[in-house]
Amino acid sequence: MGMVGGGHGAFIGAVHRIAANIDGQVELVCGAFSSDSDRSKASGKDLFLPEDRCYSDYATMMTAEKSLPEGERMDFVAIVTPNHVHFPVAKAALEAGFHVLSDKPATLNLAEAQELAALVEKTGLKYGLTHNYTGYPMVKQARALVRNGELGTIRKVVVEYPQGWLATPVEKENNKQASWRTDPEKSGAAGCIGDIGTHAENLAEYISGLQIEELAADLTRFVDGRMLDDDGSVLLRFAGGAKGILYASQVSVGEENSLTIRVYGEKGGLEWHQMEPNTLLVHRLGEPTQIQRTGNDYLDSSSTDHARIPPGHPEGYLEAFANLYRNFAADIASDLLGTEAPPYASDYPTVSDGVRGMAFIQAVVESSSNNAAWTKLPL
Amino acid sequence: MGMVGGGHGAFIGAVHRIAANIDGQVELVCGAFSSDSDRSKASGKDLFLPEDRCYSDYATMMTAEKSLPEGERMDFVAIVTPNHVHFPVAKAALEAGFHVLSDKPATLNLAEAQELAALVEKTGLKYGLTHNYTGYPMVKQARALVRNGELGTIRKVVVEYPQGWLATPVEKENNKQASWRTDPEKSGAAGCIGDIGTHAENLAEYISGLQIEELAADLTRFVDGRMLDDDGSVLLRFAGGAKGILYASQVSVGEENSLTIRVYGEKGGLEWHQMEPNTLLVHRLGEPTQIQRTGNDYLDSSSTDHARIPPGHPEGYLEAFANLYRNFAADIASDLLGTEAPPYASDYPTVSDGVRGMAFIQAVVESSSNNAAWTKLPL
Amino acid sequence: MGMVGGGHGAFIGAVHRIAANIDGQVELVCGAFSSDSDRSKASGKDLFLPEDRCYSDYATMMTAEKSLPEGERMDFVAIVTPNHVHFPVAKAALEAGFHVLSDKPATLNLAEAQELAALVEKTGLKYGLTHNYTGYPMVKQARALVRNGELGTIRKVVVEYPQGWLATPVEKENNKQASWRTDPEKSGAAGCIGDIGTHAENLAEYISGLQIEELAADLTRFVDGRMLDDDGSVLLRFAGGAKGILYASQVSVGEENSLTIRVYGEKGGLEWHQMEPNTLLVHRLGEPTQIQRTGNDYLDSSSTDHARIPPGHPEGYLEAFANLYRNFAADIASDLLGTEAPPYASDYPTVSDGVRGMAFIQAVVESSSNNAAWTKLPL
Amino acid sequence: MGMVGGGHGAFIGAVHRIAANIDGQVELVCGAFSSDSDRSKASGKDLFLPEDRCYSDYATMMTAEKSLPEGERMDFVAIVTPNHVHFPVAKAALEAGFHVLSDKPATLNLAEAQELAALVEKTGLKYGLTHNYTGYPMVKQARALVRNGELGTIRKVVVEYPQGWLATPVEKENNKQASWRTDPEKSGAAGCIGDIGTHAENLAEYISGLQIEELAADLTRFVDGRMLDDDGSVLLRFAGGAKGILYASQVSVGEENSLTIRVYGEKGGLEWHQMEPNTLLVHRLGEPTQIQRTGNDYLDSSSTDHARIPPGHPEGYLEAFANLYRNFAADIASDLLGTEAPPYASDYPTVSDGVRGMAFIQAVVESSSNNAAWTKLPL
Repeated sequence: MGMVGGGHGAFIGAVHRIAANIDGQVELVCGAFSSDSDRSKASGKDLFLPEDRCYSDYATMMTAEKSLPEGERMDFVAIVTPNHVHFPVAKAALEAGFHVLSDKPATLNLAEAQELAALVEKTGLKYGLTHNYTGYPMVKQARALVRNGELGTIRKVVVEYPQGWLATPVEKENNKQASWRTDPEKSGAAGCIGDIGTHAENLAEYISGLQIEELAADLTRFVDGRMLDDDGSVLLRFAGGAKGILYASQVSVGEENSLTIRVYGEKGGLEWHQMEPNTLLVHRLGEPTQIQRTGNDYLDSSSTDHARIPPGHPEGYLEAFANLYRNFAADIASDLLGTEAPPYASDYPTVSDGVRGMAFIQAVVESSSNNAAWTKLPL
Repeated sequence: MGMVGGGHGAFIGAVHRIAANIDGQVELVCGAFSSDSDRSKASGKDLFLPEDRCYSDYATMMTAEKSLPEGERMDFVAIVTPNHVHFPVAKAALEAGFHVLSDKPATLNLAEAQELAALVEKTGLKYGLTHNYTGYPMVKQARALVRNGELGTIRKVVVEYPQGWLATPVEKENNKQASWRTDPEKSGAAGCIGDIGTHAENLAEYISGLQIEELAADLTRFVDGRMLDDDGSVLLRFAGGAKGILYASQVSVGEENSLTIRVYGEKGGLEWHQMEPNTLLVHRLGEPTQIQRTGNDYLDSSSTDHARIPPGHPEGYLEAFANLYRNFAADIASDLLGTEAPPYASDYPTVSDGVRGMAFIQAVVESSSNNAAWTKLPL
Repeated sequence: MGMVGGGHGAFIGAVHRIAANIDGQVELVCGAFSSDSDRSKASGKDLFLPEDRCYSDYATMMTAEKSLPEGERMDFVAIVTPNHVHFPVAKAALEAGFHVLSDKPATLNLAEAQELAALVEKTGLKYGLTHNYTGYPMVKQARALVRNGELGTIRKVVVEYPQGWLATPVEKENNKQASWRTDPEKSGAAGCIGDIGTHAENLAEYISGLQIEELAADLTRFVDGRMLDDDGSVLLRFAGGAKGILYASQVSVGEENSLTIRVYGEKGGLEWHQMEPNTLLVHRLGEPTQIQRTGNDYLDSSSTDHARIPPGHPEGYLEAFANLYRNFAADIASDLLGTEAPPYASDYPTVSDGVRGMAFIQAVVESSSNNAAWTKLPL
Repeated sequence: MGMVGGGHGAFIGAVHRIAANIDGQVELVCGAFSSDSDRSKASGKDLFLPEDRCYSDYATMMTAEKSLPEGERMDFVAIVTPNHVHFPVAKAALEAGFHVLSDKPATLNLAEAQELAALVEKTGLKYGLTHNYTGYPMVKQARALVRNGELGTIRKVVVEYPQGWLATPVEKENNKQASWRTDPEKSGAAGCIGDIGTHAENLAEYISGLQIEELAADLTRFVDGRMLDDDGSVLLRFAGGAKGILYASQVSVGEENSLTIRVYGEKGGLEWHQMEPNTLLVHRLGEPTQIQRTGNDYLDSSSTDHARIPPGHPEGYLEAFANLYRNFAADIASDLLGTEAPPYASDYPTVSDGVRGMAFIQAVVESSSNNAAWTKLPL
């Protein structure tokens, strides 16, 4: 693969590289790691890349790689830049004939996302979006339980994603991660709700198999001088009648990365916490709650397909992220080699998740500016 | 004390009696345990009461007790009937000159609650309301932390109260607790939100020291044929700018009685779970989270005042409930005896909590019927 | 009941009184609360007792009560003194014809315990011993699971009881609880292992249904100048081949009262923590672990018989203690009244638990003084 | 690196490869993956290795690699075979001039381990041993807390490692992992205590900074027909006077991989669970217990040096394992390149851990065969 973004000091670029490395199925062969040509080369050198494949910008990279012989050139592009660059790079890659695996959100706004979806369809290329939390084995299990009807008709989904790292104005204290995330130019129309609220939205829809139809949102900027929301509370109504609550915050002091979901149906319920991801609580009417755990034989194969090591050997964030890479790579490889794809090859978020995410953000921002009026997802 | 309600088969009557017994400061001396005179007497006999103080109805009880000499007659009335009888009994007791300790909610609606408040003020008698969850030692500690400024200005309150016992139509299966709770005549305008949502509301205000100003509520009746809401999601705005989420449900399969609260301020946060009530998580900016535990010397005295046994010896629901009785009894006793009241004597919910609870219910029901429009508490 | 010990400032006396109060089945009618006559009377007055039934010593109490008419005199004696007084009071009570409910350990040494057992047998009176941790509903459930064969043949029992309150020499700082517990004259041959190790031993035997046959113990006095062990590690061998570990400590800084037991059999396992007593983890070969919780219908009736309130309303230490009182009182009452005893009436620790506890202490002390040589329980 | 063992179907070989991949600092360049030459080549092919560097046996590999030019040949050998092959391969590698990173235990017995240690010293080559549990960031923090004196003088160490996967005779059911582990020829003199007990021993010494001096062990074979212990309980005495308990079991039904350690000192204590490895509980006299969590700024730099992603993004078993590879590789690289080694470069288990592990096994087996007599580590 080739990488755009992710030079020295970046957080998510390193995560993507580890995720790509873990299973030894993906090799980084080139990159445009920084818009500063020297920094790009320096970053590439640390990654043991030859200098001539460390490009000064993504446009050059697309052209140069395209001119390489098949088998030598990159097979896909991983996009790990700040949000506002996701779309232009994805577009350039697709137009140059490369598959794309992009960090989320897919684009800066819904219009771009729809344009991107059209382009993906037109080119017939693969597009993956790293809503990485869906990569956890017990999230797969949760989804399987719902899909297999073990909870009955779903009634309620409560998903929350509190963090605390933006409780003070760290964006003014030279915190690079904080600065671009709180800047509307780079982050988009939403702050917290875009950065992490979309993960919650995606996870809720992935596990429940339901789509959010309309929502009522109350966004807040708690930190003085901040330009985007740093906290949001959203009531949800799903197609089919289920109700929900989505709560995201980056000012919840003491919370690290506490993405949590609970789903309740007519016959059962489930509960999963990202910070202890190898445990899934499963409730059934009149029975003791079960502690289902990663890697055990009693799990659905769609779950065990995503675990690498025996039960009790904790797998974490990077392994979940690697599952997206593994699946995306398997999808490409089976196409390339004409082999039968394994069942998990199609199990990664795609451009349609990207479109829904941008529609969610747009609806939340609109609802909040209308004093939490019910607002349909514009789809 | 005398008791109205709580005959054979009742749940909350037995709870009140245990709560009264625990500290050996309150003696049950009479009761109108059932509107059926024979059942009332039978219940009283099991409680070792003389037959002549087991009354056939509460009106008779007020008259008869009033005619007894001071020192012999009951000092206060405990009301443990279904909701619709709370107000008439309280009114009769106050008019007969007896203090009142009533189960919640105070009344069937806001108008009654305001009438009750006026009567309490006029008579100068004590009125306690058993929002028992405020009786836990670690709830006291949470309140003290907020009051002492350790969390800074409060920004967000997330309070939730999921139960699962009404996930199926048990009210049609001869479940006495379920039948009256799902009957608007006996329960009032709200089901779940009145039965347990008001506990959540009371707890949030008690700990945060803030008052809910307006709210947007989405109530649902998930079980076919049920007459009242069995699930509700509510966005909150507190006076002063804090935001909140309140969620109550009685159809969350697998949840027992999972009242939970999280409060976040500028400098810290806290988290408490009713089902493991002796633990309070305390967050502070940049520091490891602390596990504060019932009965330890590092707690505020308002917390240790409410613990009976050493740390690690778990105290539960009944002890928390008993704390309300203990405090209420101390309040009455210090008046009676002219002694100085201990600091905890005034620490129990009163009629003003009752008025706020009924205003909350009215606002929630109104908001929900207006498609979750923001609705101010009518106070 | 009448009480010996438990005057002002005592810990366990107050616990016994609350335990007796909770179910309203037992009434305190007299006491010898202190060897100081004035203190005994003052304590009794606070308990609303008439002065003439607050005795200056236990011998006087036995004589005086015996002379009262049946129905008026106490039915049994609760013993809540420091350890060295347990036996003489029990003996006096039994000889005067009163049933006895004694705090543990039963006596100061094994010889006394055996004498006591003989006396109980001879008099035909009831003798209960407050190994209160067996009173928890989920301990009953654990025992039922083993007895019903759900774990298969038991292989291993790991029981531990760490506390931290004696990590420093608090017995020299006017801590009354610490002083007698660290004084061989009052506490017996063992410190920590007698005070809390016996609880662990009793719990292990109660749940597993197995008897410790021999043991190898390593006791330590970590705090300078302390006269008795404050920490002990013991290897266990049960009759029938199961193995075990018992660990008790009062110098484990940060531990409050963390009695915990795990039992593993051929087909399953279980885990219970006293500090979160309403949860029992149940393991079965090849299945997800279950979280069994107090008060649910799926529990054995021997467990639900010991819960008072619905699931999710936590019951604690005092309720567990009260279960012993309730059962003991039911046992006496059914005899007195000639009614059929409820199934739980016989479910409380008796003098044979007391004998085993003293044998355990003697074996531990002997083993430890022989450098942890295997030592059989002298029974 | 080159790898010996770890062909198709092996567990730990795959773990080592992922661990090597994660940080992109180590490249697998050759291997002798199986003693069956075709299987070795097939395994190598799946790993994208050229056929000529997939060797049919380790001796050939050493010779062939040695003959390659520097910079092209492997830098070190990773040994991932069953136990009995560890030593011969390590010896061959060292004698051929290659550094060694070996799976544990280092050898089959103490004599071999001492021979190995002498060889390491003589050759001056690096030898790392993958006691991977010491690689967790919160284990580093635990060690730092002890070393910095925050717990005061250590009094007690309780380390346990229960698993349940050998509760039935799976070694007779074609379970490859089970067969060699229960075979004395391949596993050594101890079963469970060698396989996982040594991890517990190593962890206890690593965190406490203390050395086990003598022990009393009771090993059991619970499963009929099994040739080696599947459960063991051990009393420990550390040099300097601390006491300990070590418990390892592979028949504890329901336990996955529950390595847990608690350490108590005069001033504080700590608790860590491998299955939730990002949390460390820290106790201090008179203060609330702290929840310290991976990646936070308040941790010792020796801990944060071993975390890759922000707090709340769980790192697991593979990342901990990768930390050993990262440190070992950094140690080699700084030597090779003559650069200054980062502080973590020397932080990995070495041959002296291997010697202590084999001495531990020998002492445990000897003690157990002497009915748990106290036995000194033969060092």
